[in-house]
Amino acid sequence: MTDHPFGSAIVARLDELATITDVPGQITRLYLSPAHRRAATLVESWMRDAGMTTQLSPLGDVIGRYEGENAGAPALIIGSHIDSVRDAGRFDGTLGVATAIEIVRRLHRDKRRLPFAIEVAAFGDEEGVRFPTSLAGSRAMAGVFDEKTLDETDRDGVLRRDALKAFGCPQTGVAAMKRSRDATIGYVEVHIEQGPVLEAKGLALGVVTAINGCSRGSVVVTGEAGHAGTVPMPLRRDALAASSEMILAIERLGSTHPDLVATVGQITVPGGAINTVPGRVEFSLDARAPDDARRHALVADIRAACASIAARRNVSIEIAMPYDIPAAPCDPSLSHALAQAVARCGHEALTLPSGAGHDAMSFRGALPFTMLFVRCREGVSHNPAEFASVEDIDAGARALADFVDRFGAT
Amino acid sequence: MTDHPFGSAIVARLDELATITDVPGQITRLYLSPAHRRAATLVESWMRDAGMTTQLSPLGDVIGRYEGENAGAPALIIGSHIDSVRDAGRFDGTLGVATAIEIVRRLHRDKRRLPFAIEVAAFGDEEGVRFPTSLAGSRAMAGVFDEKTLDETDRDGVLRRDALKAFGCPQTGVAAMKRSRDATIGYVEVHIEQGPVLEAKGLALGVVTAINGCSRGSVVVTGEAGHAGTVPMPLRRDALAASSEMILAIERLGSTHPDLVATVGQITVPGGAINTVPGRVEFSLDARAPDDARRHALVADIRAACASIAARRNVSIEIAMPYDIPAAPCDPSLSHALAQAVARCGHEALTLPSGAGHDAMSFRGALPFTMLFVRCREGVSHNPAEFASVEDIDAGARALADFVDRFGAT
Repeated sequence: MTDHPFGSAIVARLDELATITDVPGQITRLYLSPAHRRAATLVESWMRDAGMTTQLSPLGDVIGRYEGENAGAPALIIGSHIDSVRDAGRFDGTLGVATAIEIVRRLHRDKRRLPFAIEVAAFGDEEGVRFPTSLAGSRAMAGVFDEKTLDETDRDGVLRRDALKAFGCPQTGVAAMKRSRDATIGYVEVHIEQGPVLEAKGLALGVVTAINGCSRGSVVVTGEAGHAGTVPMPLRRDALAASSEMILAIERLGSTHPDLVATVGQITVPGGAINTVPGRVEFSLDARAPDDARRHALVADIRAACASIAARRNVSIEIAMPYDIPAAPCDPSLSHALAQAVARCGHEALTLPSGAGHDAMSFRGALPFTMLFVRCREGVSHNPAEFASVEDIDAGARALADFVDRFGAT
Repeated sequence: MTDHPFGSAIVARLDELATITDVPGQITRLYLSPAHRRAATLVESWMRDAGMTTQLSPLGDVIGRYEGENAGAPALIIGSHIDSVRDAGRFDGTLGVATAIEIVRRLHRDKRRLPFAIEVAAFGDEEGVRFPTSLAGSRAMAGVFDEKTLDETDRDGVLRRDALKAFGCPQTGVAAMKRSRDATIGYVEVHIEQGPVLEAKGLALGVVTAINGCSRGSVVVTGEAGHAGTVPMPLRRDALAASSEMILAIERLGSTHPDLVATVGQITVPGGAINTVPGRVEFSLDARAPDDARRHALVADIRAACASIAARRNVSIEIAMPYDIPAAPCDPSLSHALAQAVARCGHEALTLPSGAGHDAMSFRGALPFTMLFVRCREGVSHNPAEFASVEDIDAGARALADFVDRFGAT
């Protein structure tokens, strides 16, 4: 075993960040919480130690800048997030921030300047646990932040704008966060995969092709409630049996191509009882694909299959899909350069879509972006059992460093 | 249209009972509640007016006795219950009590005595809404009452024994409630069908062959939770998709014979989220059949089918079926006599099992019993929309009166 000094330095940072929590015994660092505040202070000190100038954005993000050979040169932004879900793992988001800082620290240590600046973004609002919307910082950098979200409240009734003020954020300057295409090379994010594909293929790293678009909504199936003892099977209009058939159809349709996924994650029988034939069932639907045409076709196929099952079983169905996040394709040129760097570091550069959302997707249509996935154990994330090895973290950091170096050479 | 004076007199009693409720605007008359107390007083007064001697049992039942030609002759017991579920209909239980009282009232009006006594039982503990167990009164008459249930508490912590005392019940005498085989001809109960079979066949009345046995329990399916966006379909161990396949197998197995039913009435995904592949699902199972061998075979088939699905999908399964109520076959001789009476009244005497439980089933192995079902609209019960027509109620009362008359003549 080698030492993996690059990976070890990153893991040391992750370990330190993991001690910063609002809930002792967990890692819980919700957006604009006291723990997030302490984490932001720590990250800002790391950035300064790595030679960066820093600022706290009006939306709670810590942004560091390492100038290039000429001050004010266009910047490559490398980032991820330092907020967490409740009872989180220690790699989600923080890996990308720690990797970026460590890359800049090495440049600084080696007194190297590149033909471009590097900005490191430690976003604060990725997980979306506290307020109804998320990705405030990356959306502001993309120029698509919605000011109305400042009036959102958390479950304790705290306004987002008041939480930002309490966090110590400047109270103006959101518009100035926007990065122009001229002043920006692009955005790159390292993140654990949060899925099992790399592990299943025995690979440490993957280059992301697109952040999948997502359609979400709910299905309500209405049949007829009845006594479980007295209504003969042929006379039933069982909403749960109908829903079961629909769930299997959704699973089948989501399996027609490796890039697609379709999930029913929640189901309820309102007012249901052990001795009552279900009269009404509600279930959720989540369908994703790396391009919007295929995603919309998948949803249309699911609608048609469910309608057909409902008609045959004489139940009614309502499908509402109000949530439609378009796919965010990665920049082919950045992804290609990243894949070459991965290969130069001795790894097979698998390309794969990202099923989960990330800050990167905020830049859709605004700035070119790409992402590098690092293998994680069993695909587990949002859980204390989340794990990525120091070897794989090292591999990711070396690949990104190589990408940065080579990028400067072109 | 004829007048249906028999039916009309019964409906008038049902209408009066329907005004007695603990929740204004509903019919809610839980066991030993103030409304149950008022209903018991009303029913007792009806019994007295109909020439019966009455007593309140130690378990809250009102029992009336109309002596035969000789005092102390063996008794035919006719009964049902006057407690209700929450927000109930006006026919469930009360129909059998009002019909029995009206039959005796006519004998009394006509100054007729039969070669046997008639006892009318207005049981109080049929619905099982308030305490964990039910059927106290009928079980005591069958000699199988469990004294330990006196220590049960309702959801407010009230002991059953204290509720009985507050109701004004005698505090001794449960053992004396037992009816001996020598002193008892049998038990007959008129009840709305609470199912759609009679309506589907266009028939007013049905003679019950057996009260179905019932197996109840729960199934827990454990797969692996995952991110709905990142776990590819082939790598999933989705507990809900597996459960859906099981629910369809249960439906199919419950449909293999017209007498069987199998129902999944409740399902939950504990901790489920719209964007999480379900890792664990719990669902209920209720399986019924008119004889225990077929019921146990049905449950065994369901277990095998679910185990096979679980194995194929690489999920684990636990099936617990702790609730096993044996089938209670009706007395063939009593049922035959009842069917003949139905036919003499000009109705086709369909025989069918009862899918729901009734006080009658308490007498399994103790006293012969049978039941007469009256058609109800759309099979609806335990609901304010519960309805049986005055014509059908009249037909049921005339058939039961004919049965009683003819029984006396044999």
